[in-house]
Amino acid sequence: MEKKNEKITSRDVDFAQWYTDVCKKAELMDYSSTKGFIIYRPYGYAIWEEIQHYLNYYFKVSGHENVYMPLVIPESLFKKEKDHVKGFAPETLIATIGGKEKIQDKLIIRPTSECVFTDFYAKIISSYRDLPKKYNQWCSVVRWEKTTRPFLRGSEFLWQEGHTMHASKEEAMKETLDILALYKKMGEEILAIPFTTGKKSEKEKFAGAVATYSIEALMHDGKALQCGTSHYFGQGFSEAFNVRYLDKDNKMKYPHQTSWGVSTRLIGAIIMVHGDDNGLVLPPWVAPIQVVIVPIQGQKENIKHKGEELLSRLKKLDLRVKLDDSDQTPGWKFAEWEMKGVPLRVEVGPRDLEHGRLVIAKRNDGKKITINDGELEESVTTLLQDIHKEMYQKALDHLNKNITPVNSIDELKKVVDKGGYAKMMWCEDEACENKIKELTTATLRCLPFDEKASGVCPICGKKAKKVALFAKAY
Amino acid sequence: MEKKNEKITSRDVDFAQWYTDVCKKAELMDYSSTKGFIIYRPYGYAIWEEIQHYLNYYFKVSGHENVYMPLVIPESLFKKEKDHVKGFAPETLIATIGGKEKIQDKLIIRPTSECVFTDFYAKIISSYRDLPKKYNQWCSVVRWEKTTRPFLRGSEFLWQEGHTMHASKEEAMKETLDILALYKKMGEEILAIPFTTGKKSEKEKFAGAVATYSIEALMHDGKALQCGTSHYFGQGFSEAFNVRYLDKDNKMKYPHQTSWGVSTRLIGAIIMVHGDDNGLVLPPWVAPIQVVIVPIQGQKENIKHKGEELLSRLKKLDLRVKLDDSDQTPGWKFAEWEMKGVPLRVEVGPRDLEHGRLVIAKRNDGKKITINDGELEESVTTLLQDIHKEMYQKALDHLNKNITPVNSIDELKKVVDKGGYAKMMWCEDEACENKIKELTTATLRCLPFDEKASGVCPICGKKAKKVALFAKAY
Repeated sequence: MEKKNEKITSRDVDFAQWYTDVCKKAELMDYSSTKGFIIYRPYGYAIWEEIQHYLNYYFKVSGHENVYMPLVIPESLFKKEKDHVKGFAPETLIATIGGKEKIQDKLIIRPTSECVFTDFYAKIISSYRDLPKKYNQWCSVVRWEKTTRPFLRGSEFLWQEGHTMHASKEEAMKETLDILALYKKMGEEILAIPFTTGKKSEKEKFAGAVATYSIEALMHDGKALQCGTSHYFGQGFSEAFNVRYLDKDNKMKYPHQTSWGVSTRLIGAIIMVHGDDNGLVLPPWVAPIQVVIVPIQGQKENIKHKGEELLSRLKKLDLRVKLDDSDQTPGWKFAEWEMKGVPLRVEVGPRDLEHGRLVIAKRNDGKKITINDGELEESVTTLLQDIHKEMYQKALDHLNKNITPVNSIDELKKVVDKGGYAKMMWCEDEACENKIKELTTATLRCLPFDEKASGVCPICGKKAKKVALFAKAY
Repeated sequence: MEKKNEKITSRDVDFAQWYTDVCKKAELMDYSSTKGFIIYRPYGYAIWEEIQHYLNYYFKVSGHENVYMPLVIPESLFKKEKDHVKGFAPETLIATIGGKEKIQDKLIIRPTSECVFTDFYAKIISSYRDLPKKYNQWCSVVRWEKTTRPFLRGSEFLWQEGHTMHASKEEAMKETLDILALYKKMGEEILAIPFTTGKKSEKEKFAGAVATYSIEALMHDGKALQCGTSHYFGQGFSEAFNVRYLDKDNKMKYPHQTSWGVSTRLIGAIIMVHGDDNGLVLPPWVAPIQVVIVPIQGQKENIKHKGEELLSRLKKLDLRVKLDDSDQTPGWKFAEWEMKGVPLRVEVGPRDLEHGRLVIAKRNDGKKITINDGELEESVTTLLQDIHKEMYQKALDHLNKNITPVNSIDELKKVVDKGGYAKMMWCEDEACENKIKELTTATLRCLPFDEKASGVCPICGKKAKKVALFAKAY
C-alpha cells in the first residue's frame, strides 16, 4: 500500500521506531509511571480478549479447568526446585513489607507459577484417581527486566499458564505436544500467523524443564519471535515438592508434569507480522472492530440514516462494527481506521446512495470494491474470510522465502544479518551453539519436527544429529 | 431439608465453622502457603466466571471498555490524594527489591487502582471530546489483612474495578447510581440475592470519595455483608492528579470521577444466603454444574447408555451438565452433589427405564418429581427457572422478616444481637453512629433510598434527618 500516514515512521527507515509508533498511535498501549509496566488500552486489551475466548473454548473442550492461584510465592517455596530458582531469581520483584511490618519469609511476585501449582497439587493428589489434573490460569506475571519493549518484553505482562499432572510420561508428553498443536492452530485460525514448531535446545529450554517446545514466528524485519512455549517437566518438581500418588499397583509414584503458556507478546507478533507503513493490519477474527462504516457527507440526513442502517444490518451478522459519525473529514477517518488496522471499511456517499451501491475497502491490500447495497451482508462475510486467508498466505510466503539452508558460519551470518532463519545441520553440542551466538548474535530458535539430519555440523565438522533453525530474535 | 451430610457442621451449631466447611468441602477454595492468599479452585472460579460474563455483557452494552493497568503503584503516586492514602496505607503490601537491587520509589501492590487510572486519564484527557471515559478492569488486588476468611476478607481477592471520568457532576452521579442499579439487578437475575441499596455514612464511605453507595445483603445468620460499592469522587482526584480538559466554553475544567466494584466476596454471599446443613445451594444461573445425572446401577449397559443419552439431550439446551458415571454408590453421589449445591439431579434406574420415566430432585427444597422421559427438556428448563425464583423469594422473605424498626439503643441492641437490620431514625451525627458501634458492635450499613425520616434520633433526641439500617456485619 502507498504510504499515507505521516504519524508513523516507515518500516524501512527504522523498524523499531515504526513498531513503537504503531503501539502508541493505534492506542494499543501506553507507558505507565513505572518503567516496564505498560497500560493495556481498550483497543489492545480487546485483542487479548479475543485470544482468551478462542483458547478458553479449546482448553475447556479438552478438559482443562480455570483456577486462580496466589500472586505471591514465599521465597522458601520458590527455592525448592534448584534449576527453576536459578533461572528466575535474577529478575524477581520482591515484597518485603506488609501492613507496615517486615515480612519474615519474603514474597516473590509470581514470575510464573510452577511452585504454587505444584505445592497445591501435593495437597490434592494422593491416588491415581486424582489424575490427570489439568488446570489453567489467566493472570499477569512480573519479571524485572532491564530493557523493555511494549508487548515483547515487559516487567509485567498478561498470559495464561497451564499446569498439568499426569500418571505417565506418555500422557504428559501428549499433553505438552497437544497444547503446542493448539497454539499452532490458533495461529492458523485467528492470528493469521504460520508458527514454526519444534523443540528448544538444552541451552534455551525453560528453567527446570526436561524439554521445552515452542511456537516461533518470523517478523517482517526477518527477526524471530518466540510466541509461546510448552514444557515437559518429568518428575523434577513432583520430587522437589513431594507430590505422590498411590497407583493401581499399590506403589507410591511421582506424577509427570507439564506447563505451557502464551502471553500478550502475541499482540507484538500480530503487529510485526502484518503491519505496514500505514500502521496496524489486524487479522479479522481478533480485530476489536472488524468493519468501520464511514459516511461521506455524513451531515446529510439521508446519508446519516444510511450509515445507521448499515450498522444495524452488519450487527445482525454478529460482527464487531463501528459507525464513525464523528465530525472529522472522510480523509482523516480513512487514515485513522487504516492506522488502527480495521480489516474492512464500508463507505457510503451521496452518489453511492443514488445508485444503490456501496464501496468496500480492504485494509490488507488496499483494494476497493463497489457492490450493490443488497450484497452487503454476503460481501462483508466473504471478504473477511478472504482477508484472513490472504494475510495467512502472505505471512507463510514470507516465512518460506526466508528459511535458507546454510553450510558454514559465514553463510549463516549472512542469512541472519539480512534477516530470516538459517537452517543448519547441528551436532547437538552446546559449544557450537555458543560459538554461533558469539559470532552472529543469532540464537537457536528451535529444532523443527519432521526434519531429518544428514551430513556434518559445519561449525565443528562432527556428525550432525539435528536440523536447527538459527535467527536473530526479539 | 433433612440433615444428611456429616462432613459439614450444622449452621445452628457453629455458623462460622459451617461456612469454612462448605468452602473447603465443596472444593470452592483452599488455603495456600501464604496466609490470607487463597486458591480459587475450579468449582469456585467457575462461579466467578459466570459473574464476569454477566457483568461484561452489561458493561459493554453501556459503553464501558475493559483495560489492564499496572499491578504496582509507585509510592510517590499513591500519596497524591491525601484521604485515599490515609485509608489504604496501613494495609499495603510493598515491593522494595527488583532484580536484586533496592527500588528507589517503592512499589505498592495495588489495593485499588484509583491512582493509576487517574494518572493515565491525566495523559489522555484534554478536551470535552475525550469525555466520558468509562474503563473497567478485571484483576486481583492485595490488602494486607490481619484476620482473613475465605472470600469475605482476604489479603488477595479478585474483583472488577470501574473508573470513569465525566464532564458534569450530574453525569457522574448518574453513572454511580446506574452501576449500583446494575449490581442490584445482578442480584435479582443471577445470584438470587435481594440487595438493599443505599448511601454509606460519612464514617463508612470509601477513602477519598465524596459519596459511597453500596449493595448490602443479609446472611442466613442475620449478619449483613457489603457486597459491592459505587463511589462518586467529585473532582478530588482530578485536582490531585491535575486531570484537566478544555470545555466547549473554552475554559479549563476538572472532570468528575466515579469508581465501582464487586469482588469474589459475592461467592461468600451466595454461600451464606442460600446454603443449608447439607452444604452449598447454588442459584442455577451461576452454578458451574446446573444438572447432574446420576444413573442407578450404572454398570448395566442399558442404564449407562441412557445416562449418556440424557447428557447429550441436556447439553443441546446449552446447559452445564455432568454425568456422574464414577464407581461410587448412588447414595455417595447424592450427598456429594447436594453438598456441591447442584440445582437439579436427574436419576435414572432400571425400573425408571422400564416405565419410560425419570426422577428429578431439586436441591433448593429437596422435592422429587417423577416425569416421563419425553418431558425431560421442558421440565429441566422450567425447574431451573422455578428454582431461581424460589431461592430469590426465600431470601427476600428472610430479609423482610429481619428489618425491625427500633426506637432506642436497647431495642437496637436486641435486634442486632439476634440478627437482622435495625431500622432507626438518625440525626446524621457521627457521634450517635459511634456510640451505637461502641455499645453493640453494629455498624451503619446504609441509608436506604426512598425512606423518609420523621421524629427524633433515639440516641441523642435531636431531629432525625435520615433513616438508617444498622447491623452486625462481616
